[in-house]
Amino acid sequence: MTKPVAQRPGGRTARVRAQILDATARLVARDGIAGFRYEEVAELAGAHKMTVYRNWPDRNSLVSEALLAAAEHTATLSDTGDLRQDLVDFLLALAAGMADPTGRALVLAIQSAKDNPDLRATTNTVLAHRVALVQHRVDHAVALGEIPQVDALLLADLLSGPVQLHVSRDLRPFTREDAERIVDVVLAGLRATAR
Amino acid sequence: MTKPVAQRPGGRTARVRAQILDATARLVARDGIAGFRYEEVAELAGAHKMTVYRNWPDRNSLVSEALLAAAEHTATLSDTGDLRQDLVDFLLALAAGMADPTGRALVLAIQSAKDNPDLRATTNTVLAHRVALVQHRVDHAVALGEIPQVDALLLADLLSGPVQLHVSRDLRPFTREDAERIVDVVLAGLRATAR
Repeated sequence: MTKPVAQRPGGRTARVRAQILDATARLVARDGIAGFRYEEVAELAGAHKMTVYRNWPDRNSLVSEALLAAAEHTATLSDTGDLRQDLVDFLLALAAGMADPTGRALVLAIQSAKDNPDLRATTNTVLAHRVALVQHRVDHAVALGEIPQVDALLLADLLSGPVQLHVSRDLRPFTREDAERIVDVVLAGLRATAR
Repeated sequence: MTKPVAQRPGGRTARVRAQILDATARLVARDGIAGFRYEEVAELAGAHKMTVYRNWPDRNSLVSEALLAAAEHTATLSDTGDLRQDLVDFLLALAAGMADPTGRALVLAIQSAKDNPDLRATTNTVLAHRVALVQHRVDHAVALGEIPQVDALLLADLLSGPVQLHVSRDLRPFTREDAERIVDVVLAGLRATAR
């Protein structure tokens, strides 16, 4: 990882930085990890080319930070006290995130990460972030006795795997009813198979 | 689609054809759909370059047939009478198929198919093939009253989505125990939420 630019939240530097990462994610989505160009990142972000090169001399670190930032924007999991509702909203947010250009770049990167150790570290960080969100929400539900003890990684896979297939098939939009059906089957299945 | 070479099952033509499709899938896995070269397909298959060009003048049709053939080899779903066992074996076969080079090419192709209408038709055919296998096996189980009526597409997504995430994360192998846990949760969840 390269040293980040000094940033004050909300300041101009932070804003430029966010624009560069967003532009990178979009161009990776369009041109692939090997194909996107620094010149175009700068142009799309409205930044100087040298700002991009200076802060991210290493291509992999630019891609990694861009994908992480995109993932953190898309996957959110609230705790309103209603577990079913919170998980349904989480799946809808995931589906929306996967369907947009940066989300697609992320999914492609995850699939092709085997060949690129740096990228694999990033995609594993992104997936770990998703699992941590589920873990946090589920710990609360387990403490309240709403569901049995469960491995958060397994639960994250059971919930988000079907969403990913639905979105990548791209035959029809992923709806709230789809999300409810997945959440209902998985929660009922966990309760019925508690060991 | 191009006209296929005349084939006698088990004959030399059929064998050469299978070798060409297998070589194509391997090279697509290594070099990508846009990057693989006909010359190398011919070399790897031990065939004449003109045989490849004559039978598949269109690049997309070669890729499509290669990915379809690979998918048909990997995804199999038996009917031994034991639904749980058959689904567990299906998931293990899927995981093994996704982990090998042609399976990875297929997964990548599915993810990037949005930008290529021909390819999208193929990947949808591959996914439909998978769903048809599940439909066939599940119809029998429903008829026997082993599980409630269920949408085969939803069931295929619930079962294979988690497998795909597990394999693409590539942190540890997908085991029989993993497959059993997924199948048990999903079947129990379907029974508990039958409408």
